[in-house]
Amino acid sequence: MSSQASALVMGVGPEKGLGAALCRRFAKEGMQVFVCGRTKEKVHAVCSSITNQNGGAVPIVIDVTDIEQVDKMINLIRDSEHPLELAVYNAGNNLPQKFLDVTAETFTSMWKVLCLGGFLTSQAIIRLMLEQKEIAVQQSLLFTGASGSIRGKSGFSSFASGKGALRMLSQSLAREFGPQGIHVAHVIIDGVINGDRVVKGFPEFAEGLGEDGLLDIDAIAENYWNIHCQHKTAWTQEIDLRPFNETF
Amino acid sequence: MSSQASALVMGVGPEKGLGAALCRRFAKEGMQVFVCGRTKEKVHAVCSSITNQNGGAVPIVIDVTDIEQVDKMINLIRDSEHPLELAVYNAGNNLPQKFLDVTAETFTSMWKVLCLGGFLTSQAIIRLMLEQKEIAVQQSLLFTGASGSIRGKSGFSSFASGKGALRMLSQSLAREFGPQGIHVAHVIIDGVINGDRVVKGFPEFAEGLGEDGLLDIDAIAENYWNIHCQHKTAWTQEIDLRPFNETF
Amino acid sequence: MSSQASALVMGVGPEKGLGAALCRRFAKEGMQVFVCGRTKEKVHAVCSSITNQNGGAVPIVIDVTDIEQVDKMINLIRDSEHPLELAVYNAGNNLPQKFLDVTAETFTSMWKVLCLGGFLTSQAIIRLMLEQKEIAVQQSLLFTGASGSIRGKSGFSSFASGKGALRMLSQSLAREFGPQGIHVAHVIIDGVINGDRVVKGFPEFAEGLGEDGLLDIDAIAENYWNIHCQHKTAWTQEIDLRPFNETF
Amino acid sequence: MSSQASALVMGVGPEKGLGAALCRRFAKEGMQVFVCGRTKEKVHAVCSSITNQNGGAVPIVIDVTDIEQVDKMINLIRDSEHPLELAVYNAGNNLPQKFLDVTAETFTSMWKVLCLGGFLTSQAIIRLMLEQKEIAVQQSLLFTGASGSIRGKSGFSSFASGKGALRMLSQSLAREFGPQGIHVAHVIIDGVINGDRVVKGFPEFAEGLGEDGLLDIDAIAENYWNIHCQHKTAWTQEIDLRPFNETF
Repeated sequence: MSSQASALVMGVGPEKGLGAALCRRFAKEGMQVFVCGRTKEKVHAVCSSITNQNGGAVPIVIDVTDIEQVDKMINLIRDSEHPLELAVYNAGNNLPQKFLDVTAETFTSMWKVLCLGGFLTSQAIIRLMLEQKEIAVQQSLLFTGASGSIRGKSGFSSFASGKGALRMLSQSLAREFGPQGIHVAHVIIDGVINGDRVVKGFPEFAEGLGEDGLLDIDAIAENYWNIHCQHKTAWTQEIDLRPFNETF
Repeated sequence: MSSQASALVMGVGPEKGLGAALCRRFAKEGMQVFVCGRTKEKVHAVCSSITNQNGGAVPIVIDVTDIEQVDKMINLIRDSEHPLELAVYNAGNNLPQKFLDVTAETFTSMWKVLCLGGFLTSQAIIRLMLEQKEIAVQQSLLFTGASGSIRGKSGFSSFASGKGALRMLSQSLAREFGPQGIHVAHVIIDGVINGDRVVKGFPEFAEGLGEDGLLDIDAIAENYWNIHCQHKTAWTQEIDLRPFNETF
Repeated sequence: MSSQASALVMGVGPEKGLGAALCRRFAKEGMQVFVCGRTKEKVHAVCSSITNQNGGAVPIVIDVTDIEQVDKMINLIRDSEHPLELAVYNAGNNLPQKFLDVTAETFTSMWKVLCLGGFLTSQAIIRLMLEQKEIAVQQSLLFTGASGSIRGKSGFSSFASGKGALRMLSQSLAREFGPQGIHVAHVIIDGVINGDRVVKGFPEFAEGLGEDGLLDIDAIAENYWNIHCQHKTAWTQEIDLRPFNETF
Repeated sequence: MSSQASALVMGVGPEKGLGAALCRRFAKEGMQVFVCGRTKEKVHAVCSSITNQNGGAVPIVIDVTDIEQVDKMINLIRDSEHPLELAVYNAGNNLPQKFLDVTAETFTSMWKVLCLGGFLTSQAIIRLMLEQKEIAVQQSLLFTGASGSIRGKSGFSSFASGKGALRMLSQSLAREFGPQGIHVAHVIIDGVINGDRVVKGFPEFAEGLGEDGLLDIDAIAENYWNIHCQHKTAWTQEIDLRPFNETF
């Protein structure tokens, strides 16, 4: 049996994106990385970039809001015999809209990707981690949050509601499973990420903020890694990250 | 056209319950009260107790998580020609469970009643309130929260997640519609309510806390009324309520 | 012995100010009001305006940051034989300054008026309230907070630090003395008060906000009164108040 | 001129204590460490343990609540020609007491060490850092907080009040000086530190918690270092640390 530990990153999109940066960061540490996203091309591109550097990466193309697909994902990880030591729920989306323009479908689908997927995957992950207690050195389950997680504002009703739901889920898990050795933490990213989603999607907006005004994806990933490495007597439940010049 | 203002209370259950107490409190002020709940017998019993005291009460038996039923409810209120000045989203439920015992169905249905219903009804209510801006004196939309709204704990993953989602929704609405004259507030009820749900459902637990250790439903309702009456230069967005001897 | 209850308001300044409005509000309920401030003329003017309306008001001209003067104040109240049922610590000050311009003297004197006075008077008040437990109907100790109490921002280092200190004091007291029947609450005033301090001190600024953008002093006072009247099973520890159009 | 960067740690006590661990951690990175505390023997012992490992350590025996001594300290650092890149305000104390037993002297002296010293030293440090902007690579000012910083509880009135004051100070500085390139962060230590203060002072209490239930000082120090190293587009303002089995 292999004793190489594995990491799972959910919500992996473009190579220049937080999900991909997390995968690369964990692979650099020698972990086998399960790269999970909805878009086959993107997931495979991230895997290739890792394997090209002699890292270990396995693509998992699924929708994390579908319980059957989640089960398949976990079985694949369990069968790999790489103990799962680190999982990140990074799936998300944002769609600023006036409240009266938000359809019930949008509100629901935002919640599904922001929170329900976190619930479904957390359950499967925690079950697996409890099974693997003896063979894992460190077990962490991290969630990507946002300023909307702690503050609802005009135009962000569906985003803030979904992120607020995920945050309370993460706290419940931290309090239930921390004493069982699973480190559950929530990272509040307060600002705009320097990734393709914004840089390509809203180039003028990104330019206006400038390189220094956008959160560097590798810099963010470094913090996830540091949280994973924390000694069990000094665990973080919540941390915020923002550019030095962000107004908050 | 009648100029008598109306109030809508959603989530009305037993006569000895917070929803019913809110209805009675608002009726006492001379408001026409729309009494909304899922169980016909309960809704009608609350209406009778109000009309018996010469108050105005109209039963609305619907499921607030169903958009079509919500539309019907709002049309009924609009057609009544009583301007809607006060609405309370009080629907909720709780089911403490170990996280690994929570099914996806439970997690989803908790969110639906705790948050989605709040979204669907808020949209319909706010649209109506904006239409009635000229004929309404005061317009308030209040949400019932809980300690789980601000703190996830072991055994409360689905409850806290749903309540956290509702809280962020309420903040988003407060910031978007406050400047338009709609007062959106969130009431955190931190403790056990002295209503049938707990007193009849868990009699020993309720007895252990004692009369003084349970939140009196009329006392809670008084606070909702006070928030509705606040002058527009001194609005509350969030208030907490708990028994004097509650640990917090 | 008289059984008329009394209220104490600390930090009373101009007649058009929050302290004065609180005094008038409590006097209107028939309470004997101890009007406490540093400036003799202002304190006496507020007392006169109350006694002219047949209310009961006693001037106390002291500095609440001086323990001996505080003792004198409490002895005067004790000797009056009006049980002290309500006390408000409303003393405060603000002086926006760049951090590097704040002298140690300013930082210290801000803390003294914002927090130390609250400590000294709370101790004396709580001792008196415990003595009077049998003869008092309701016992409340309220603190005036601000947005700076929960959020430090540029230019407000001494103000936020002093207010943050007072808030943590109020929470400690709420948790220690709530179960003993003393209701300790903290009111966060988020915005500019429509009182002489700003209206006369910074007339253009006040005009820019407009009548509706300034917190009405009587409207604020109404909320303090409502908190005092809360049933002991539904006490508030913290409430926020702001104009409907305030950005937050 | 030397280009070796320096770090300043204030509030250094026993070798088995957080202050000392911070000094050792920073020295290990090759920084010249200014070891600041009130007790000469302790400060010198920490310096010796560092220099014995070929690290650079300079003792500064002062009281940080005295502005003249603070000035002397800063002059010494300025004259050293080691650019100050990292400073930690770790001075503190705790003395659980019933509220009515707290004297005005205790309340004041707690505030002085918990907050006033933070103010005095921050001003001197920030002035120096602004002078050294050109020659410093990274400039961080970190504050040690506690659970009392965000939650006042019975028996902790003076501690929570002082820590709450420090937290609001740190937020004000973060918002004013972050955009100028000085990283200001606040570390909430929620639990008991595995240092001599508790282990020797309250041995039975410490034993009851067990090795795993006490925050390891080196593990805490690791987190301070990581915060200092954060990329300027991903800065933390607040982080919490607690043992995995701590109830929170």
